[in-house]
Amino acid sequence: MAYHSSYTRSGLGRRAEENTPETALRGFLEHSIERAEVLNPRFAHLWREISRLALGGKGLRPQLVTGTVRAYPSRPTLPVINAVAAAFELLHTGLIIHDDVIDQDRLRRHHPTLNAAAADHALGRFREAGQDTPAAHAQADQYGRSAGIIAGDLAITGAYRLIATSYVPEKRLLRLLSILDKAVFRSAAGELMDIEHSLPGAPVPNQEVLETSRLKTAAYSFEAPLKAGAVLGGAPAADVKLLGQVGRVMGTAYQLVDDLLGVFGDPAQTGKSAVSDLREGKHTMLISIAENSSEGLEVREFMERAVSHGLDDQDVTRVRELLVHCGAKSGVERMVQEAKIQAQELIQESNFPPQLRQELLETLVKVTQRSM
Amino acid sequence: MAYHSSYTRSGLGRRAEENTPETALRGFLEHSIERAEVLNPRFAHLWREISRLALGGKGLRPQLVTGTVRAYPSRPTLPVINAVAAAFELLHTGLIIHDDVIDQDRLRRHHPTLNAAAADHALGRFREAGQDTPAAHAQADQYGRSAGIIAGDLAITGAYRLIATSYVPEKRLLRLLSILDKAVFRSAAGELMDIEHSLPGAPVPNQEVLETSRLKTAAYSFEAPLKAGAVLGGAPAADVKLLGQVGRVMGTAYQLVDDLLGVFGDPAQTGKSAVSDLREGKHTMLISIAENSSEGLEVREFMERAVSHGLDDQDVTRVRELLVHCGAKSGVERMVQEAKIQAQELIQESNFPPQLRQELLETLVKVTQRSM
Repeated sequence: MAYHSSYTRSGLGRRAEENTPETALRGFLEHSIERAEVLNPRFAHLWREISRLALGGKGLRPQLVTGTVRAYPSRPTLPVINAVAAAFELLHTGLIIHDDVIDQDRLRRHHPTLNAAAADHALGRFREAGQDTPAAHAQADQYGRSAGIIAGDLAITGAYRLIATSYVPEKRLLRLLSILDKAVFRSAAGELMDIEHSLPGAPVPNQEVLETSRLKTAAYSFEAPLKAGAVLGGAPAADVKLLGQVGRVMGTAYQLVDDLLGVFGDPAQTGKSAVSDLREGKHTMLISIAENSSEGLEVREFMERAVSHGLDDQDVTRVRELLVHCGAKSGVERMVQEAKIQAQELIQESNFPPQLRQELLETLVKVTQRSM
Repeated sequence: MAYHSSYTRSGLGRRAEENTPETALRGFLEHSIERAEVLNPRFAHLWREISRLALGGKGLRPQLVTGTVRAYPSRPTLPVINAVAAAFELLHTGLIIHDDVIDQDRLRRHHPTLNAAAADHALGRFREAGQDTPAAHAQADQYGRSAGIIAGDLAITGAYRLIATSYVPEKRLLRLLSILDKAVFRSAAGELMDIEHSLPGAPVPNQEVLETSRLKTAAYSFEAPLKAGAVLGGAPAADVKLLGQVGRVMGTAYQLVDDLLGVFGDPAQTGKSAVSDLREGKHTMLISIAENSSEGLEVREFMERAVSHGLDDQDVTRVRELLVHCGAKSGVERMVQEAKIQAQELIQESNFPPQLRQELLETLVKVTQRSM
């Protein structure tokens, strides 16, 4: 479960002897591109875009699956494990493609988002036709959003396809599909709560902000892959359940670190603008604590201005100072440490195989100390 | 396979003795609302919106499944059949929810689309906060689109969940999931080609427009449900394949009728504005024939104006006259008849059970003669 996987290191190179979640994912994507090519060249291009995003990640979710399944004795063959592990990376890809459309993001991991790249393609077509009008720009953006919706649908349902065709025995197949389904369900709930919080209204309680990121991210990124790995390995029911709890706490820590990096991180490392969270008026835990502090009014004014008019660099410096001064930054850092300790306790008191305990503790350190 | 089903007639009433695709769908939706309620009230509301759309249709796709499976001897129990049949209605719901976001439609079946209703909710929140600005309207629209993306994801993956939990025996389950997957894949290809055609550029050949609607609509609406019914009923492989072909031709006829109704239909019956296809610059077969006719230049000008400035009632009357005069209307009507004859021949020359032949011929008549 080494945190920096071959996903980023291997790039597009591929060794014949490898049999990893990445090769399973790559195989699935290449097959999909071939299927798409038969129908329409532009459709094949869309699948290449999905591949670019699916293979450009850190591969954290597949590692959680494989690391867990390896610790249990009754595990299936490597191709089965890798297909299931790959499914969680593909699900993640689909959800972030849709999330980028929802948040109107144009940059992810130093590269254009799928919707931004597609909008650029459409704008090119308008320009070729001599149309460089505001209406053409608006239509190009809508084209980009639409391509993002279609691509996300393909990646999300692709996760189901990968699991359904993985040759897992039927009883485990149904349990895996149920874990996948629950992850999608919870992620959708969290995403909806997230956009709801961006509407004007009463401040959102800290607890609800935490619950939102648990549902939106932790459930499918940590809870589901750990449980899927346990089911694949034939783990005892108590372990499956407890791994779900560990995933929930670990995922919460991950998301809180993400919120910190989103404002205080180095864009060169995170691959996204350090101010996009602020500019989009995202309701992170950082903002939530600040809003509910004595400096709440000032923060709220900043956020409303960010949403309606954008913020200049000076504003961003000021809001960072505010977030430090009102105790929001240290508050979130404390919550990360609390989640870390809680996860450690769960792991140490568990009956997980020693190898799994060790790997989970290492992953926990990496999740809480990451800078990207 | 009666075309006007209990879906529309029964409304929200429900009789205990019924065991239909509609009750299966309703059961699934009610269970989802309950699951959602536990997480967040707004999320439960989103599921109620999905239910409104899923239960408001004509139930054509489930009828294609049940009508086909009934004709074969080796059929599973009614709950299994109904769950699979319901899955295709839910898939349809998800795809139209996303299609409405892509086309920026605000009306479907006389009611607000999910994205329009959600945007209204968001706008209400902005107004309560004293914000009725253009920026607030833009953000409310974005909120509506986002809710539509999330809801579509839930309905599409819900179709997988319905089939996965239907207790179909494993071998048939994998074939059904594969049919579902192929339907989603093709629909995505068609949707992408559709938005691609709305960009400026050389006229799209008629053949490609036809292929687009085959992929976008016929594949999941006719081909997949008929094949799924055949697989469920244990039909011979030759029948499964031929039913796919019948579905493709029937679906093509259906879509061509849709294109005619989209411009010449009665909005009171179709439930959508008679000019929305024109206003959105949709590349229907009607428009494609016109663009490739001697009056092509005039039609293209109209369409470009429609996309960038909208059309007034007088323009709409004029474009209708043009579509009649250049032979586009009669051309599409002829294609409907040709598809009808082709489907009839396929059905009559088949070895389908007589009952199925009869039902398919009846469905064909209804599909080609419908006015909504």
